[in-house]
Amino acid sequence: MDRLEPTARSKIKRLHERAHYNREAINSVLDAGLVCHVGYCIDGLPHVTTTSYWRTGDRLFWHGSSASRMLRQLRQAVPVSINVSLIDGLVLARSGFHHSVNYRSVTLYGEAALVADEAAKLAALEAFTERLLPGRWAELRPTTSQELKATTVLCLPIVEGAAKIRTGPPKDDEADYALDVWAGVVPLRLVADAPVPDPRLRPDLPLPDYLAKYDGPVTPAQAAAQPA
Amino acid sequence: MDRLEPTARSKIKRLHERAHYNREAINSVLDAGLVCHVGYCIDGLPHVTTTSYWRTGDRLFWHGSSASRMLRQLRQAVPVSINVSLIDGLVLARSGFHHSVNYRSVTLYGEAALVADEAAKLAALEAFTERLLPGRWAELRPTTSQELKATTVLCLPIVEGAAKIRTGPPKDDEADYALDVWAGVVPLRLVADAPVPDPRLRPDLPLPDYLAKYDGPVTPAQAAAQPA
Repeated sequence: MDRLEPTARSKIKRLHERAHYNREAINSVLDAGLVCHVGYCIDGLPHVTTTSYWRTGDRLFWHGSSASRMLRQLRQAVPVSINVSLIDGLVLARSGFHHSVNYRSVTLYGEAALVADEAAKLAALEAFTERLLPGRWAELRPTTSQELKATTVLCLPIVEGAAKIRTGPPKDDEADYALDVWAGVVPLRLVADAPVPDPRLRPDLPLPDYLAKYDGPVTPAQAAAQPA
Repeated sequence: MDRLEPTARSKIKRLHERAHYNREAINSVLDAGLVCHVGYCIDGLPHVTTTSYWRTGDRLFWHGSSASRMLRQLRQAVPVSINVSLIDGLVLARSGFHHSVNYRSVTLYGEAALVADEAAKLAALEAFTERLLPGRWAELRPTTSQELKATTVLCLPIVEGAAKIRTGPPKDDEADYALDVWAGVVPLRLVADAPVPDPRLRPDLPLPDYLAKYDGPVTPAQAAAQPA
């Protein structure tokens, strides 16, 4: 299934020309982001938790302490709404009304599933590390069974949702193009700076290759996509 | 009230040493962010909407089209949870388990209130523009009453919530400090690049002073805080 079927809640009604339901668009946004916002209801009241995530195939994963309120709640297969948003620019129009933001965002809906199997859980955590730091997992000391027990991994099948993307210059009222007002876009992007060694790092340990890619103003997603 | 009283839902239970309930910490995170995530429940199902926001005194504001599903729902004083998260770095520990993220985040709870009064609404929109682009509001053509009608402005009193902040190097198990594993932090930040003029911009219009501040790798929050 290359395209998610729009549902009552996932179908984008306003500015629907910005909507994308194909997996390629959805995955490209998910793969460019670092954190997601997980929304859920407890006793009818809303909660939003920010957390790291990663994608493997048609599933989105996130994790945390087994003691976490959010994870204890969500492992019970309650409905979630997950949003990933990347802000790409401030859009300055000639009227206040038409000011906007360039962004790429994805919203997914569904019920979280617990990754209970130990081997599957370990494989998921490896994929998380390797996504951003390819090669690092093999360097780390093995995860202990106690650590694995203290970690809850959840996943959401990517079956209901949509991407919403705005790009390009402002769209002004035709008459306003004659105004003496500067208009355009201020591009925004997330960059990484040179890695800062732990004060207790042994001085003879060199910077790993997968971190050399982060030494400079590139986005983490770009860095992760570069060959080591 | 310089400090928000922790409640059952706002009190941070895990890693409570990262929690801050004083307004100074909460406001400094809110003032550094660009977008928030608004969580709410419709028929018991969670929704998360990403939107721009701004703060004036002890209230958080956001806005959008009066036709928006989110805003039509929220103007009915339903409970919301609002999160602002800024990701400051990847924290690389010597074990997978202790990897982390440096971040500043604020979660607020309450019921949204409609800014119904036309003058108050206009003042709120001016504050939004001036927050990021000080001096721009006066240059724009006045907002029409039709545009004002088409815009819904909501606000949330900042009375229930908390900031959660992680900074600094990884915290490893004592025995792991002897391992041959690079550890430290990859700093991350949002930067602005040189403004891109609208293709239809009149060529004789110079870049405004408030945008010259954005021409270079500074954060929008830093740029807005600099004197013009």
